[in-house]
Parts: sequence; structure tokens; C-alpha cells
Amino acid sequence: MLNRLELAKAEIVLAEWMRKPIKLSIQELLALAARPGVVSFALGLPSPELFPTSLYAQAVDRVLSTDERALQYGVPFQPLRAHIVELMRLRGVECSEEQVFLTMGAQQAMTLIVRMLLDYGGSLICENSIYSGFQQVIEPLRPFISTVPTDMQNGIDVDAVELLLASGHRFAFVYTIPDGHNPTGSTMSAAKRERLVGLARRYAVPIIEDDAYGFLHYDDPPIPPMCSFDDDWVFYIGSFSKILAPALRVGWIIAPRRVCSNLTIVRESIDIDTCTLTQRTVAAFIELADMPGHIARLRSEYRARRDAMVEALRDHLPAEVRWEGPRSGFFVWVGLPHHLLARDVLTRVMDTQKVAFIPGECFSVNPDADAEHYMRLSFSHCTPAIIKEGVKRMGQSLSKEVISRIRPESAASRSVQ
Amino acid sequence: MLNRLELAKAEIVLAEWMRKPIKLSIQELLALAARPGVVSFALGLPSPELFPTSLYAQAVDRVLSTDERALQYGVPFQPLRAHIVELMRLRGVECSEEQVFLTMGAQQAMTLIVRMLLDYGGSLICENSIYSGFQQVIEPLRPFISTVPTDMQNGIDVDAVELLLASGHRFAFVYTIPDGHNPTGSTMSAAKRERLVGLARRYAVPIIEDDAYGFLHYDDPPIPPMCSFDDDWVFYIGSFSKILAPALRVGWIIAPRRVCSNLTIVRESIDIDTCTLTQRTVAAFIELADMPGHIARLRSEYRARRDAMVEALRDHLPAEVRWEGPRSGFFVWVGLPHHLLARDVLTRVMDTQKVAFIPGECFSVNPDADAEHYMRLSFSHCTPAIIKEGVKRMGQSLSKEVISRIRPESAASRSVQ
Repeated sequence: MLNRLELAKAEIVLAEWMRKPIKLSIQELLALAARPGVVSFALGLPSPELFPTSLYAQAVDRVLSTDERALQYGVPFQPLRAHIVELMRLRGVECSEEQVFLTMGAQQAMTLIVRMLLDYGGSLICENSIYSGFQQVIEPLRPFISTVPTDMQNGIDVDAVELLLASGHRFAFVYTIPDGHNPTGSTMSAAKRERLVGLARRYAVPIIEDDAYGFLHYDDPPIPPMCSFDDDWVFYIGSFSKILAPALRVGWIIAPRRVCSNLTIVRESIDIDTCTLTQRTVAAFIELADMPGHIARLRSEYRARRDAMVEALRDHLPAEVRWEGPRSGFFVWVGLPHHLLARDVLTRVMDTQKVAFIPGECFSVNPDADAEHYMRLSFSHCTPAIIKEGVKRMGQSLSKEVISRIRPESAASRSVQ
Repeated sequence: MLNRLELAKAEIVLAEWMRKPIKLSIQELLALAARPGVVSFALGLPSPELFPTSLYAQAVDRVLSTDERALQYGVPFQPLRAHIVELMRLRGVECSEEQVFLTMGAQQAMTLIVRMLLDYGGSLICENSIYSGFQQVIEPLRPFISTVPTDMQNGIDVDAVELLLASGHRFAFVYTIPDGHNPTGSTMSAAKRERLVGLARRYAVPIIEDDAYGFLHYDDPPIPPMCSFDDDWVFYIGSFSKILAPALRVGWIIAPRRVCSNLTIVRESIDIDTCTLTQRTVAAFIELADMPGHIARLRSEYRARRDAMVEALRDHLPAEVRWEGPRSGFFVWVGLPHHLLARDVLTRVMDTQKVAFIPGECFSVNPDADAEHYMRLSFSHCTPAIIKEGVKRMGQSLSKEVISRIRPESAASRSVQ
């Protein structure tokens, strides 16, 4: 029992993983990027002009007026699983309905797979710079993370993965994003995909293949995901957030057959139900829409935005700044000269030019001197004209900095605000 | 590296908590109860006739046609938080918008609070028989669970809680359901609520107050939730599943002010976004609907069902069977004579009379000899006429059993199928 003095000071004791300093929350970035007048290359938001709103409204109306189970607790909606099998053919994947596990978005899919495979304090392999949402998912389990580099030309460093696997240490899984890599925009080569899948099988270590951006590839022909090479060791994660709309929160896993039933157990440990209304509505939407045509339109629109950004980078940024044009996804990973830190550039570009992006270090698993000199620019949310304008403004600010070659004074500050 | 023989046998290694035998999944129960011709008292499903489907359809239509941010990633929808502050007044609670944290249903709310407070291998206090969804949420954290009894007259045994707290051992929280307790249907007295809140404060141990059924109280006046006594140590969980519709997956937490921001961090570790479309639609629904009137209608309908079940139990069940009429929620906890096991009764009642319920042991935290003689009957999903018919059929089967007084042969089987 506490005495009066202790009582006055008593605080709610949080779980240990909550007590360490916290990275910039995504919600804060949403707020930052939403300030009026800001050209935001910060978040990987799909373009709202491309949401098929009226067709989706038709789909909701159809479901609510004809489907009497639409509002009740229910099992995952089977017809949507069948539609996803069809959709996966567009990605070059043959799978069966039993392998399709419906989730509330790619992030929940990741949570389920991680909680199914990773013990508290267990080990895993991922890249040095990787999607911050993945890091948030693993953090409560306090894992040991072994990182490997990403090659901008052909994706995750598979030699480095093999070295780790060959060490004999047990890893719960390897996580990677083979297409439209977040944050680097890189694409994994077909040869590397085949090799990584072979390693997974040989060392009995599953792969989590995050394909949130995979349908949005711009330079044909696309390379099929790893799950098309092997469906015994690959957990594929797909999402409607980028090809329909994020607010729906519908995603899926293509899982190895022998663990499908385990996913239900994990899902119930997080949420008892499956948002059947949205699942039914997405299924109805797919029945009303021409999905291959819709996705082709999205690709064409996002391709134009990528081209606009790459062109503007070439036209307006100093020669010392380096980047690769991504083949898919929403991001360009832009390397600054080594005397410039991306967080300082952000501060000044925001202040003087009202342009936002995310400094590369926000994606670093471990403090990484290299990532501090990178900026992640997203081209998905702005029209080509705004992209050109924003890059031009960045260029004005950056040209001065590159010329001045003075290491900024505020380098010690780690805040991106 | 694996040799060829090992390779052929290699299995995906699951996290440790996944490897132990698994309780009956809720999805399996959904399937069991949905068999044609079955009168199901099994699941706490709200009655679909009471879903305000057409008004909800209007609300979706309004949102999709007027709100251009409806389909995009976004921050929690502020106006819904304001509506929930209003709604909480109907429960006798004054709270502020900043305390309202929106979730995807009560189950996610529970997940967030548990992951915020409970360390892996940490300790907690709950009742002997408690909502199985709560048990699923804590299971991956492998906690040490100290259980206390539930008094059918006035809820959780607060003396037993005090004994545990006074032992000096650190507990992450106390979890309870003060109204419409699941599975026992009991209501916690006002005196006990006040005492438990005092203990929470004195021992600096938060309370998780699960109020999924609290708006559905049948015998006025209702007792206000514990968070109205103290909002420093109580995490209140509310849900639209029972007062609007479960498929929406919208719930909320009323949290102590000083930890509200931490909840965002935990939420992002599970899902990056907040289902803003549904939040906006529920807000629009509340603006279109007369919520106090809607909830009063629900109360009146569920009260009629409770009355029908209690009356039928009195008319058709043998005198040796005991129960209390619940003051709120969806459940009656029915005690069988000690020579009958609920799981055996279920098998026979399903086989001979096609009536389903859940045996009490499914809610036991630890193997509990007492709970094996209880049945949880839900009256929410059937009309009064069907309730009477189902209880009558159970009575026919049970009367024979009580008279025969023969301990059933299949007592060793633990399957509820």
C-alpha cells in the first residue's frame, strides 16, 4: 500500500517496451504534411483523385440493401478470397482460396505473421533501412535484429542474408519489400528472388514478402513476387490501400497451406471479428469494377508522377545529389552529398520553401550514418505540376547548401520537426 | 544448413505461445451455431432485426458524397470523439474529448491497453470465469494470472482482489466487466465499484473496465461505470458492436489523461491507420439518428428477451437447476446439479434437441471444477418465441438427466463439439 506522499506521485507503470524514447509518430507526420501551403513528398499517401468513390458508394449501397448478414459478426467473407485469387493472377501468382487470409490492411497482416513466428526476444533479419511501420510492429517483442544492406540496383543483399543464415543462429524470419521498396524504391531482381527463396527452404527460415506496392509497377515486364516461386516458405502480404483506398483497411496474406489455421488463432488474439461489412463491400466493388482496367489507370497516373519527379530532380537538383528512378511504388531515395544531413535540409526546406519529405534516418533500424544523408521523396500524392514545383523549390534551397559546403551547426539536433 | 532428410521434414517454427493446445476457436463456434434448425443460445450476437441498416446506409452515402477525406489515410475523426463524450453522459460519465481514444472495436481496445500495461511474463488479476476474448488477448504475453471469484449477486470478489494487492506483488492491472458480465451476467454493486477504484488508487494498479454491454441495462436505475468514480486509474472500454452493429468494428477507450498519447504508439504497433471511413460514417449516423431513443428501443427489446428466457427457465427447467436473472447484457449463467457436466449436456441437447449454448468451462482461466457445471445461455439473438421453444426443448432433455442421476459415461471427453 502506498503512503500519502507516494500516492501523490504514483504513475501508471507502462510495459517496458513503452518506456524507451519514441520515434516520430506517423500521426505527427500526417499533421506536419497537412499544413496549408506545404508541398508534401513526406507520406506514401495514394492520390485521392484516383479513389473510385462513386463506384464504392454503389457497392456499399448494394451490400446494405441486399445482404442481411452485412452488419453482423461473421466469418471472413469467402467470395472476397476468390476475388483475391483472381487479382493475384495479375501479379503472376497462382494460389488457392484456402491460402488467402483476409486482414484489416497490410499492417495487420504484418502484425499477425510477426506474432505467429517471432518469440519475445527472438531474432530476425531485415534491411538497414526499412518501412517504419514494420519496426513498430516488432518493437513490443524486443527482438534481436540483424540487418543487411539494400542494393539500389537489385534489392536486399542476399549474400549478407546467406552469411547470417549460415552462422547457425536461429532466425524467426527474413522481412523484405521486393517491389517499390519503402524507403529506397528499389526492385529486387528475379535472380535474387529465386536465390532468397532457395535459402529460406534450405535453412527452414520463412520469408515475409511485403507487397503493398507491387501492383503499381511502371516498367514492364514486372517480376513476379517470391510467393510464386515457393508457397511453402513465403508469407505474401497484399493490400487494397494503394489500389482501392486506405481508409477501408482491407489487406490479405497468401500463407503456406500448413499454417493457415494458426493465423486465425493469432487474429483472434488481436480482434475477434473481421470487418465483414467492408469485406463484403470490397467484394461487391470488385464485381462492379473492371479491376485490371482500374489498376492499369492507376499505373499510368502514378507512372506520370514518377516521371515528373525524376525529370524535375534531374533539372533542378545539384549534380552532387544522387538517386535511382524507381520501377514501382511511390518513393525515390535521394542521396545528399556527405556534408549535408537530411534532417537539417528538411528543417530549412520546410522553413524557406514549405516542402516536406522524410529524412532517411527515420527508416534506420540501427543508427546508420549513411541513411542520415538520404531523403525519401514520395511522388504519389501530388499532381505532376505540383511535383515539379516542389522539386524546383527544393533545388533552390539545396543549390545554395551544396555550394556553401558548410557543415550545418544544428547537426546535433535529431528532431525532424 | 539442412540435409535432404531434414529438409523434407522441416516445418515453420511458430512462436512459443502458438505451440500449446488451443481452446475452441470462436470461428468454430460461429459455424456450430449457424447450422440449420439449431436454436442457438451460444454466442452473444446482437439481434440483426435491431440493426438500423437503412439509416446507416444513408450515413455512408452522405459521407462518401460530401467528405473528400473519407477514403484517405487520416487521423482519428474528431467529431466522433465529441459524440462519444455525449453518449457517455447516458452512462452517467463526464469525460473530455482528449480522453476518448477511438479503436476498431472493444477487442482492439483491450489489445491496446493490455500491450501498453502488461510486460511479457507479467502478472494480472481477473475473475475465474471471464470473457474468452480477453484470454486470447493476454495469451501471447504468457502472463501470470491471479484469479478471484465472481459473486452472482454483486460481481467480482473485491476482498480477494485486496488480498492479492496487499501481498506486495506487482500486478499490471485488474480486468473486470461490471455490467452484463460475460459469462455470468452479474452486475457489480455500487459499493464494490467504489471500493475497487479506491484499491486501484491506493495500490497504484490500473483497472480495465470492459463495458461492452453497459448501455443495455434492463432494471433502472443503472449504476455508473467505475471510470465515473475515478479517471486517473480506470481504462474504460466502450463499443458500438451491441448498440449499432458489430461488423463496423468501432469502439473506444476512455483513458486516464496522462497516458492518452501512449495509446497512439501502441495503436501504431498494431495498425497504422484508424478506419476513418467507418469513424466518419458512425459519426454521420449519430447525427442522423436519435441515439437515446435508439438505445431505449434496444433496451426494451432485449429486456423482453431476457424476461422470456428467465420465465422459460422457471417454467421448463428442473428445480435442481439454478440461475440469476441478469440486470444487463446478453447472458444467463445457469448452474447444473453436480452430477451433470455442461459439456455432456451440450452434446446431448445438440443431438436430440438441436439447442446450442456454451459450457462454462470455455470461460475458465484455469481448469475450474465448478465452471464445468455451468452453461452460458445468450438470449440476445433469438426472438422471445424462439427462446421459449429452445428452453422448453432443453428442459425436456434435462429433466430426464436430472431424474436419471447417472453420471454420464463420456465425462472424460473435453470436446464441446
